[in-house]
Amino acid sequence: MSIERVLLTHGGGGRMARSLIESIVSTFDNPALSRMEDASPIAIPKQEKRSEGDAVEQQPRIVMTTDSFVVTPLFFPGGDIGKLSVCGTVNDLATAGAVPAALSVGLIIEEGFPVRDLERVLASMKKTADSVPVPLITGDTKVVEKGRGDGVYISTAGVGAVRPGIELSPARIEEGDAVLISGSIGSHEASILSARNELSLGAKIESDCAPLSDLMQTVLEAVPEAKCARDPTRGGVAAVLCELAESTGCTISLDEEAILVDEDVQGLCDILGLDPLQMANEGKMIVIVPANLAQTVLEAMKSLDVGRNSVKIGEVQKGAGRLVMKTPYGTSRIITMPVGNQLPRIC
Amino acid sequence: MSIERVLLTHGGGGRMARSLIESIVSTFDNPALSRMEDASPIAIPKQEKRSEGDAVEQQPRIVMTTDSFVVTPLFFPGGDIGKLSVCGTVNDLATAGAVPAALSVGLIIEEGFPVRDLERVLASMKKTADSVPVPLITGDTKVVEKGRGDGVYISTAGVGAVRPGIELSPARIEEGDAVLISGSIGSHEASILSARNELSLGAKIESDCAPLSDLMQTVLEAVPEAKCARDPTRGGVAAVLCELAESTGCTISLDEEAILVDEDVQGLCDILGLDPLQMANEGKMIVIVPANLAQTVLEAMKSLDVGRNSVKIGEVQKGAGRLVMKTPYGTSRIITMPVGNQLPRIC
Repeated sequence: MSIERVLLTHGGGGRMARSLIESIVSTFDNPALSRMEDASPIAIPKQEKRSEGDAVEQQPRIVMTTDSFVVTPLFFPGGDIGKLSVCGTVNDLATAGAVPAALSVGLIIEEGFPVRDLERVLASMKKTADSVPVPLITGDTKVVEKGRGDGVYISTAGVGAVRPGIELSPARIEEGDAVLISGSIGSHEASILSARNELSLGAKIESDCAPLSDLMQTVLEAVPEAKCARDPTRGGVAAVLCELAESTGCTISLDEEAILVDEDVQGLCDILGLDPLQMANEGKMIVIVPANLAQTVLEAMKSLDVGRNSVKIGEVQKGAGRLVMKTPYGTSRIITMPVGNQLPRIC
Repeated sequence: MSIERVLLTHGGGGRMARSLIESIVSTFDNPALSRMEDASPIAIPKQEKRSEGDAVEQQPRIVMTTDSFVVTPLFFPGGDIGKLSVCGTVNDLATAGAVPAALSVGLIIEEGFPVRDLERVLASMKKTADSVPVPLITGDTKVVEKGRGDGVYISTAGVGAVRPGIELSPARIEEGDAVLISGSIGSHEASILSARNELSLGAKIESDCAPLSDLMQTVLEAVPEAKCARDPTRGGVAAVLCELAESTGCTISLDEEAILVDEDVQGLCDILGLDPLQMANEGKMIVIVPANLAQTVLEAMKSLDVGRNSVKIGEVQKGAGRLVMKTPYGTSRIITMPVGNQLPRIC
């Protein structure tokens, strides 16, 4: 773009707004977006028609999700607000077993925001969306006065298609099910924490921020019977599993030794007295499956780089809706739902 | 809700966040939302299957749109940011001829925002969405520090279904087409202007903020051949018609006498030197139709309260991609695309 900073007039409806929007649109190079209509067509992935009689039954279910992103700093090791905004929405679709069909983006830009940074954020969104792949088909741009925002806030919404026969839901969780996770925990929140100016701790921890739709599709192709999936973002694994334990009335029992925490992340947590179990992840998926299929699902997860450290961390037991941690010393303790967050604005 | 102000911890992933979210969810009283899944199912309106052979052809097209809202003040005569956020997205779907199927909402709340105000905004969203009707099926809440936002920003995305045979697009505009609008212009921006503290002008001008999906469906039932629709928000009628004139290469000729401006709005514009043609509307639709069907479309529009003052304001002529205003004195002048906005943060 030929300007250096975003001005308030770029948020109006005139020629300056149009020039900013055209620059944004050209970044994404997508026919539906380039038409610059108020609403854009979604191409719903076609499903194979399995028999002549039930054309209607074979239609995919369409699902929708949204997220707003206010992370600070905007750029951090392993990602930035642009990558995060695509991953977050794609991963929410993935928890429903959906193949992403389309994304929308709403930008709330603070007056004076450097255009160079905006371009970096947009390029990062484009790169991440292409890797899924999912088209970004529609968007909106607003500008607020200096001191009424913080660089840029991004809201993404996503639409996806769930193929017939897939039904991921907490209601299907039963005693005996296995709890799997696609790798080590806590690195996104640890990355944000160490990237904040006031906490320059030396260790450069990379966020795990990654799209997980491929991982979930690989799981569901191997084991369509998978029961429930959740991405443990704000509140971490603790919040997600406390919620599932409460809603199912089962006890979820975790094996402390099985849970992977990277050395740098554990070090940061030890210094600051934080619990990795409560720390946000942006590239991990918890999958709950029938025990006898756990090994097959783990192998499917490990077949992808993003799931190479997948591991079984616990199981669903008869109980009273609690999350329990079994320690290596043979004792166990109850994990309660975090009250607030350990750190604001991590996503 | 039992609290008075939104705190930073309400944006975390823990119990406090959950209690805020549960309050929000209960406002909307919608089964898909109440499941509180990361992604929610969209019920796509069913289409009548007109013949056995072409079941696939009769599927509706699915379209998506998004908007972010940063209007200030949050409450203004005739509406508030909640009503506006639903109308804006519903109206963008309406410009494509779509029946709204689902909305998502992302809230970015400033720390310390009064919960009473949040409740008012949410109740207003619910009321407006019910009047469409369209379900609000999924959402997200973030909290930013005091001084990093401005009360609340709302991002809505919408998905809608366009029935087969409807094709609203600027590409279909031709010489001879009539330009219609659903009533008087400029009242939304004038309302915001007069509601701002620094400009207490006495006159209480009401915003036209209203959902227009019913209006567009009524038009399309009467005249499926309608060619293009646009809601003249930021930049007003001038920006929308300049854009259409440029993109089609036709001249759009407006009749100054035909354009309705409410007395209060005109008075405010005269005092401040503003042009109503450049002022934002949030409850008006411009519809471009073949000239011989203009009367039928006008009658359809007038059959609804929201379109009772519908009027033909101009026509499409051979030309050089310009917007021209014919004055009552027999002269004419060229209207150029506004450069910036007359007023920031009107939507």
